[in-house]
Order: sequence, then C-alpha cells, then structure tokens
Amino acid sequence: MKLGDGVEQAIHCVLLLSGLGADGALPAAALAEYHGVKTSYLLKHLQAMAGARLLVSIPGPRGGYRLARPAQEITLLAIVLAVEGSAPAFRCAEIRQRGPEPLPAQFHRLPCGVASAMLRAERAYRAELANITIADIQGDPSTPLNQAINQRSCVFLGLHQRVQTERT
Amino acid sequence: MKLGDGVEQAIHCVLLLSGLGADGALPAAALAEYHGVKTSYLLKHLQAMAGARLLVSIPGPRGGYRLARPAQEITLLAIVLAVEGSAPAFRCAEIRQRGPEPLPAQFHRLPCGVASAMLRAERAYRAELANITIADIQGDPSTPLNQAINQRSCVFLGLHQRVQTERT
Ligand code: FES
Ligand code: FES
Repeated sequence: MKLGDGVEQAIHCVLLLSGLGADGALPAAALAEYHGVKTSYLLKHLQAMAGARLLVSIPGPRGGYRLARPAQEITLLAIVLAVEGSAPAFRCAEIRQRGPEPLPAQFHRLPCGVASAMLRAERAYRAELANITIADIQGDPSTPLNQAINQRSCVFLGLHQRVQTERT
Repeated sequence: MKLGDGVEQAIHCVLLLSGLGADGALPAAALAEYHGVKTSYLLKHLQAMAGARLLVSIPGPRGGYRLARPAQEITLLAIVLAVEGSAPAFRCAEIRQRGPEPLPAQFHRLPCGVASAMLRAERAYRAELANITIADIQGDPSTPLNQAINQRSCVFLGLHQRVQTERT
C-alpha cells in the first residue's frame, strides 16, 4: 500500500497558501519552487484540489491559487481524497464467486466478511484524517519552530504572491 | 491509495487453508484454482506469507501449504503486511527541506507535523486490522452462509488436499 508523493506536496501547498493575504494568489510555479518539485507534476494536484473546492484557481496573468475556505475547514482527509481519489484502498473483486462450484447468488447479497473488515479499517483511517485540519497542523504560532516556518513562508509569499486588483 | 489484488487473494487462501486437517497441505495450483487466479501470481503471495511465518511451505511431490499457526492467531494485519510490505503508505520525502532558504537542520530533528498526522491515521488503520483474526472472519459456523461456505471448501479440500505421511 502506498500513497502517491502528491499527497505530501498537496498538503504542504495548502499550508503555504494558508499564509496568503485575503486578496492574494500564488502561481503554480511559485508553489513548485517552494517545494522543490516540477510545476507540471504539481499542477495536476492543484487542479484536483480546485475541483474538490479546496482551492480556487484564478485565471489570467495575475492569477494563481488560493484557499477556497479557511484553514480550519480543510481536513487532511479532504486533501487526500482530492489527490488520490475517493475509492477505497481495498477493492473486493468477489473472488468468492470464482473457482469451482460457487455458491448460489443468494449467498452473495451481503458483502464478503473479508471486504467488510478491510473497509472497517479504512473507515478508522479516514475518521482520523477527517479529524485533523490544516489549522491543527499549523499549531501554535508562538513556538520557535512555527515562528521559523511562518517567517520563511512569509518572506517567500511577499516575493511571489499576486494581489488581485479587480476592484474598481 | 490502492491495495494490490494480492491482499484479497491471500486472505481467502488463509481462510481456505484453515479448513485443512492436521496433516494436510494444499498445493499452490489448488489454491489458485479455488480462487480463479493464476498460480504464478498467487505463488508470490504464498511465499511472502511463508516468509512471514503465517504459512508453512512443505516441499516435495506431496507438499503444499498449510497454516503455521491456528486461525485465531493470524490477524488481517499480519497478512496485509506480509503481502504489501510493512512500509507505511505515507512516505515523507522531507519536502520541507527543499526549495529556497530551507530552515537550519536543528528545526528538522522532529518529524514534520504533516507526516506525524498521516502516520497517526495509519496506526488507527493497522490497529483495526490487528484486532481481526481469520477466526473472527470465519464467524459462527452454524449460520446458513457459513455452513454453505464450509461445505464448499470441505468438498474441494477433500479432492485436493495432500496428506503428509512422514510418520514411520
Ligand atoms: S470476495 Fe472479495 S473480499 Fe471476499
Ligand atoms: S516534509 Fe514530509 S510531510 Fe512535511
């Protein structure tokens, strides 16, 4: 079982975007630069998160990405499902119905006990991730570590964020 | 996130093997036939389970596989880890240390908060699977469904199991 590298990158992108000002947006290329990854690769995940309404994608030369909701309303589960898809990791191929002399169909109305148990474990996994928001990950802004993280991202955002000037 | 098809097959193989008599063994080809899969594909998983001491592999013309321990001592977690490997699904590539002006090393002694949260969720998943044994999955042998399952496997084992005659 393996999660794609995109999950780590997507969560860290949301963390960085949570530092933007109200009118700010960050281009994909800047998000890629900050995380040391290729823009082309990251774009797929940014678009998936925009499709899941976690991010807003602002088109145009002053465009970029910003959060679609406050950090305390974005859970790790929402990001993981946006990037990895929402299908369960365990997929029952109904092998109990293959092979010689399978049981009559009436015995297969309920899911196989193996599938039920595997999905129960996945529910526990998802419940845990649904309980953790981006704001939780940010934690207490006054610790030395979080101060250092915020200072680093603040300098970067100051250089790269684009401010929307749609107001007349 | 996706688990390989091997997990479903491996768990069902252990379920079938749990019906063997004390001196019995079942060849890989019979396990494959019962589950409608290719022997060559299944062998990899059977060997992984033998390596993890869940199964015993008995060599020779009357050989095959049998359980290495009672069904109530084989958890779903042990099977999943044997087949899929024990590495966590989330693998932190330390992207916090990439990009411009990374923080000094002393800030990276502790794991990143994102990685910690993702691994906490995996612990919940594994704890759930560690709590379910093959005996739990078999459940109550007197239900109509379990009677039908046991009868089907009993007929098949009667035809294909090999009895060890090493005694003198
Ligand atoms: S038939 Fe799919 S898990 Fe049992
Ligand atoms: S650096 Fe890997 S999860 Fe944060």
